[in-house]
Amino acid sequence: MLVVMNSHATPQQIGAVVDAIRAMNLTPHPLPGATRTAIGITGNVGAVDPRNLEVLPGVLELIRVTKPYKLTSREMHEGDTYVRLPQTTIGPGTFTLIAGPCSVENEAMILRTAEFLVGRGVRLMRAGAFKPRSSPYSFQGLGLEGLAILDKARQRTGIGIVTELMDTENADAVEEAADVIQIGTRNMQNFALLRRVSRARKPVLLKRGMSATLEEWLMAAEYVMAGGNYNVVLCERGVRTFSDHSRNTLDLSVIPPVKQLSHLPILVDPSHGTGRRDYVPAMALASLAAGADGLLLEVHPDPDRALSDGAQTLNFAGFEKLLESLKRLAEPLGRVLN
Amino acid sequence: MLVVMNSHATPQQIGAVVDAIRAMNLTPHPLPGATRTAIGITGNVGAVDPRNLEVLPGVLELIRVTKPYKLTSREMHEGDTYVRLPQTTIGPGTFTLIAGPCSVENEAMILRTAEFLVGRGVRLMRAGAFKPRSSPYSFQGLGLEGLAILDKARQRTGIGIVTELMDTENADAVEEAADVIQIGTRNMQNFALLRRVSRARKPVLLKRGMSATLEEWLMAAEYVMAGGNYNVVLCERGVRTFSDHSRNTLDLSVIPPVKQLSHLPILVDPSHGTGRRDYVPAMALASLAAGADGLLLEVHPDPDRALSDGAQTLNFAGFEKLLESLKRLAEPLGRVLN
Amino acid sequence: MLVVMNSHATPQQIGAVVDAIRAMNLTPHPLPGATRTAIGITGNVGAVDPRNLEVLPGVLELIRVTKPYKLTSREMHEGDTYVRLPQTTIGPGTFTLIAGPCSVENEAMILRTAEFLVGRGVRLMRAGAFKPRSSPYSFQGLGLEGLAILDKARQRTGIGIVTELMDTENADAVEEAADVIQIGTRNMQNFALLRRVSRARKPVLLKRGMSATLEEWLMAAEYVMAGGNYNVVLCERGVRTFSDHSRNTLDLSVIPPVKQLSHLPILVDPSHGTGRRDYVPAMALASLAAGADGLLLEVHPDPDRALSDGAQTLNFAGFEKLLESLKRLAEPLGRVLN
Amino acid sequence: MLVVMNSHATPQQIGAVVDAIRAMNLTPHPLPGATRTAIGITGNVGAVDPRNLEVLPGVLELIRVTKPYKLTSREMHEGDTYVRLPQTTIGPGTFTLIAGPCSVENEAMILRTAEFLVGRGVRLMRAGAFKPRSSPYSFQGLGLEGLAILDKARQRTGIGIVTELMDTENADAVEEAADVIQIGTRNMQNFALLRRVSRARKPVLLKRGMSATLEEWLMAAEYVMAGGNYNVVLCERGVRTFSDHSRNTLDLSVIPPVKQLSHLPILVDPSHGTGRRDYVPAMALASLAAGADGLLLEVHPDPDRALSDGAQTLNFAGFEKLLESLKRLAEPLGRVLN
Repeated sequence: MLVVMNSHATPQQIGAVVDAIRAMNLTPHPLPGATRTAIGITGNVGAVDPRNLEVLPGVLELIRVTKPYKLTSREMHEGDTYVRLPQTTIGPGTFTLIAGPCSVENEAMILRTAEFLVGRGVRLMRAGAFKPRSSPYSFQGLGLEGLAILDKARQRTGIGIVTELMDTENADAVEEAADVIQIGTRNMQNFALLRRVSRARKPVLLKRGMSATLEEWLMAAEYVMAGGNYNVVLCERGVRTFSDHSRNTLDLSVIPPVKQLSHLPILVDPSHGTGRRDYVPAMALASLAAGADGLLLEVHPDPDRALSDGAQTLNFAGFEKLLESLKRLAEPLGRVLN
Repeated sequence: MLVVMNSHATPQQIGAVVDAIRAMNLTPHPLPGATRTAIGITGNVGAVDPRNLEVLPGVLELIRVTKPYKLTSREMHEGDTYVRLPQTTIGPGTFTLIAGPCSVENEAMILRTAEFLVGRGVRLMRAGAFKPRSSPYSFQGLGLEGLAILDKARQRTGIGIVTELMDTENADAVEEAADVIQIGTRNMQNFALLRRVSRARKPVLLKRGMSATLEEWLMAAEYVMAGGNYNVVLCERGVRTFSDHSRNTLDLSVIPPVKQLSHLPILVDPSHGTGRRDYVPAMALASLAAGADGLLLEVHPDPDRALSDGAQTLNFAGFEKLLESLKRLAEPLGRVLN
Repeated sequence: MLVVMNSHATPQQIGAVVDAIRAMNLTPHPLPGATRTAIGITGNVGAVDPRNLEVLPGVLELIRVTKPYKLTSREMHEGDTYVRLPQTTIGPGTFTLIAGPCSVENEAMILRTAEFLVGRGVRLMRAGAFKPRSSPYSFQGLGLEGLAILDKARQRTGIGIVTELMDTENADAVEEAADVIQIGTRNMQNFALLRRVSRARKPVLLKRGMSATLEEWLMAAEYVMAGGNYNVVLCERGVRTFSDHSRNTLDLSVIPPVKQLSHLPILVDPSHGTGRRDYVPAMALASLAAGADGLLLEVHPDPDRALSDGAQTLNFAGFEKLLESLKRLAEPLGRVLN
Repeated sequence: MLVVMNSHATPQQIGAVVDAIRAMNLTPHPLPGATRTAIGITGNVGAVDPRNLEVLPGVLELIRVTKPYKLTSREMHEGDTYVRLPQTTIGPGTFTLIAGPCSVENEAMILRTAEFLVGRGVRLMRAGAFKPRSSPYSFQGLGLEGLAILDKARQRTGIGIVTELMDTENADAVEEAADVIQIGTRNMQNFALLRRVSRARKPVLLKRGMSATLEEWLMAAEYVMAGGNYNVVLCERGVRTFSDHSRNTLDLSVIPPVKQLSHLPILVDPSHGTGRRDYVPAMALASLAAGADGLLLEVHPDPDRALSDGAQTLNFAGFEKLLESLKRLAEPLGRVLN
C-alpha cells in the first residue's frame, strides 16, 4: 500500500503518518519525490483499515499496490532509481561498465587490471575473493586476503569494487571492502543472505537465479528493499534452458518488462550469459541496444591462464575493441558510458 | 567432403570431377568462389576412397567436413551467402525488414499495408494465407484466396511477398505466389516439406523450431540445401523455456554461433519472440546490434482488431518510430537498412 | 457445446438434432453412452443461439464446454475411451505393450521379432518404415518396401502393426499397412498430417511434441477427432529440458492430468524418454504404477547392430525380464497386460 | 583417488596410509567394507605421485576416480549407503515414508499429526520451523518456537524429525532438534550451508536444485561428504521446465542414473513435484516402482486451512488410502515400507 502525501505536506505531517503506520505493526518506507512524498507500507497490509490513514492531515490518497512485490514496483515508486556510488551513478541515460577478472588471483594481476580499466575510463572493477564453485575441490578464492588486495587496488587507482558475498559470516568484511555487494545467481533465494544485505550500507547487485522467473527475481529484490536497503541493481546473467550452443541462455527480453514493472536499474553479464568470449561483444552491444543500464564483463590480462572462467573472459585488447564499439553505439541511443 | 579445385581449373575439369562424384552415387554441389571453385559432396561419404578424386586434373585438395551439417557449414562454404531477390538482397552489411500482418485478412488491409510499407522503403511484406493454429476451430487463413490477394499487392506496389507454406499440397501455389517461402517453427523438422522446398525455385525462410538446438536447425537447413536449393535464410523466433514474462524466450545469443558455424543469413522475429508489442522495439534494436541480418515484424493497420496475434503487432505509427530508431542505430554499425 | 438427449430420446429425435446442428453450419458428433446419447458440437459455436436446440424434442439440456479442446475433453465425453483393434483393446484396466525395433531393417529381423513377441503374448509390434532423421544423409527407412515387410509379419504371425506416418504422400499406404498410425513428436503440430489422419479408418497414436504443453497436445488430438476419427491414443515420450542425464525428460506427471481432463488412453515410450536401455525397465514399471494404459518399447534381436537408436533398445532377454516384472506389478494394480 | 587395502591389512597399516595421505596435505576418508577397507582421498589429487602410496604395507591397489564427484560416486564406494537413524534406516530394500505438514503451525496440529503418523507405522515426520518463502511478507515459519514443538512431538510419540535448515545462524538449533537436517532446493548450492552441515552429527536430506543437473547435485552432496558427514540422502522434488500442467516437472528418470553413479539413497517428494494433491498418489506409486528409496509427503489434518502449500497436501484419509496402495505395490517389488 502507498500513502501519497499532498505537495504541501509538512515534515511533521509525514512523521505522523510514519508513526501511525508503525503503530499498526507495519513498516513505513518514506519515498521522497520531486513534487511530493509518498510512504510505502509493507507487512501484513491486508488487515489494515485504510480509513485510519486517509483521515490524517496531509494525506492525499491511499493506493493499493496490486503486484506481490511492492517496493521494487513502479506502482509504488514511479521514477527511475539511480544508484549513487562514490565513483559513478548507475541508472537510465548512462551505461555503466563493471569489468575485471572472475577471481582475485594475486595482487599483481588485480593492480594491473585496475590500472588498465581506470586508464580506459572504467570506474568499477569486478573480481571475486569468494568464489562459488560446483566442486569442493576447486579453487574457492583467496577470501579475506583477496578482499585486502581489492582494497589496495581501490586506494591506488580510485576504482570502485564490486565483489561477491556468499555467506553471512563474511558479510562485515565484504561490506567494508566493496562499493557494491554482489549476490550471485545461486544465492538469489538465499533469504538469510538477502536479509543481511538488506541492512548493509552498500548497494547490492542482485543476479537473476538460473531458473528464476521475473516475479521471483523482483521478490528477491523486495527482500533487500524491505529491510531498508533501497539501492538494488538487477543483473541478468543467462537462464538455464535446453539450448546448448551457449553456457546459459541470455534472456535480453527480460529488460523491457523489468523497465516496465520496476524502477530498479538492470545490468547484463554477457560473459556468464554466453560462456564464450567470442560471443561476448555481440551480446554486449545487444544489451546496450535493448535498454540495459550497463554491463558486467570478465576481463583478464591473460585469460588463457585464468584460474576460472577463462573461456568467457576478454583480454585487454578485446576489451578495448569492445569499448570502442559500445561508445559508437551509445551516442545514437542517447547514452553516456561511465 | 569438399573438393577444392585449383584456380586455373577449366570448366571441363570441373565437369569431370562432378561426373566422377555422380559415378560414386554421391551428390556434387559446385560452389563457385571469387578465385576458385569448390565442389561439395554429400551422401554416404564415408565409403569414398578420396584418392580416386585427388588424382583428377585440376584438383587442388580434398577437405573432410567435420560437422554433421555440410552445405550449411562455413567449412564447406567460407564466404557469406547473400540471398538475392527481385526486390532486394539479404545478407551481411544490409539489414532487411520484412513487415506485415500475421494473416491476410482481406484485400483492403493488405493493399493498405503494402502501400504503407513501400512508402517507408520496406521491400518485403510478410502475411500468412495459410495459418498454423493450435485449435482446429480457429481462423485458418484465407488459403488460395489469400495468395491471390498477396499477388495483387505485389503487382500494385512492387513489394516482395514472404508467406508461409504449411503442407506439400499447397506447395505449387505458394511457390508461385511467394518471393520467399516461409517454413514455420512447427514444421522445422517436417522433412517432407523440407524436401519439397529443396526443389523450389524460391528462397526459403526457415524458422527455428520451438525447442531446436542450433545443430538441429542447421540440419534442417541442410535438408533444403541438399536438395539443391541453396537460398536459405534462418530466422530466430524465440524458444520455449520456463520463463513466463514473454511468450517465448528470444535467443539472440544464437546469432554469433550461427555466423561462426554457417554462411547463411539470419533474421530475428521479435514479434513472436516476445509476444508483446511493447517489447518489440527493444528487441528489434538488440537484434541489429547483435549482428542479425534483418527482422521479421508484425505490423497491422489496426492491431487491436487483428484476427490473430494482435497483442504482438505494431501499428503503423509504432512501426515508423521503430524504423527511425533502427536507422539511427544502423549507421555506426556500418549497416544499411533495406 | 454438448447437447444431452434424454434417456428415452428416439433415433428420429437424435437425427433431427443432428440435422439442426448441420443447418447452423456446425459439426455434430453423436456420442452414444450407456444410458443416453449426447451430441457434441464443434465449429464456431460462439454464434449459436442455444435456445434453437433446447426446444427440440428429446433434448434434456445444453452444456457449454469450457476447455479449448472439446471432443478430447471429459466435459464432452465422460466415460473412458477404449480403442478397439483386431488384436486387442487399448484403455483403462488393461496395459498394452507395443514393442519392436526402431526401424524395419530387413524381413528376417522383423519376422524374428514378430514371432518372439507373439510367443510372449504381445499383440502389437512397432517398427518404422519411414524414419524421421535429423540428418538428410542418415538412413531414412525402407519406405514402401518396409511396409510390405510389416504386412507379411502380420499375415504370418497375426501381430498388429503400429508404424509412423510422416507425410500425406504416403498416407494411403501407411493407412493400408498399419493397425495403428503413429504420428511422431516432430509432427504433433503438422496440421495437414493431422487432418489427413482425421479421415483415416485406423486409430492414431499421437506422440507428445518435444516441447508441447498438455493443452497443445490435446488440441492436436482435437484436430484428429474434429475430422471424425475418434480413436486417438496419446503417447508421452519425454520433453526437452535442461536436464542432461537422459536423452529427454520423461514427464510421467502428465498422466494424472491427462486422465482427469481427457477420456483418451495414454501410453508411455520410455525408450525415447530416457534414450538408454538401462533406464528403460525402471521407467516402464513407473509408467504402469503411474496409471498409463501401456508402453511403446524398442526391442531388437541385436540392439548393438541396430541401424538406429540401438543405445535405447532392449534385447530379447532384457524384454522378457521386464515383462516378468510388469506382470508381477500389474496384479496388485488390478491391471491385465495385453 | 581410492586406496584399496588388501583383506588382511592391519589397523596399523590402515593408519599408516591415512597418515601418509594427511602428510601430502590431502584428506583421507576410510571406507570400511565387508571384506576389505578402502581409503578415499580428496583434495588436489592431481599433484600426488601414486607410487608413494602403492609401496606402503597392506596396500592392494590405487584406483583413479574419473568422475568429478568422488565420495558420492560408486567408483569410490561400491556398496549402497544405508543412513541409520534412531527410528529407522533409509536405503535399498526398504521404502521410507517421511510425512507431515509443510510448516509447524502450532503445537496441537503437530502433535495430532505425529500421533496419526505413528499410529500408521510412519517413523519420520517432516515439518518446517523455518520456511523459505518467495515473499518477505509471507509467513516465514515459527522459528525456534517451531523447533521446540517438534521436539515435544518426538518426545511424546517417538517419531523422528526431518526439518529444514536455511542458514548457518540456526544450524546449532536445527542440528539439535532434527533427526535429519533438510537442505531445500533453493540452497542446494549454498556452499556455506553445505559446509556447515558437513560438520553436523545428523544426516542430511539434500533436495535437488530447481534447475540442477545430476552432476551438480552429486557435487553438492560431495561438499557434505568431503567435510566428513557421509550420511546424505538425496531427494528429487521436480525441476523447472516449460511444462505448465504441474508446479514442477517431477524427474523420476533421474532415479536409475543416481543408483548407477552413486551409492546414496534417493527419495522423491511428489507433493512439491506436482503441486497438486490429486496428482500425488500416482506419482508416489510411480516413485516406488521406479526404484526410489522412499517419499517425502505433505500431510495435514486440514489441508484447506494450511498456512502454506495446502493445494499439494493430502489429508489424513488421503494419506491412509495412499499408504494401502503403497503397501500392495511394495510386496511384488520386494520392498518393505518403514
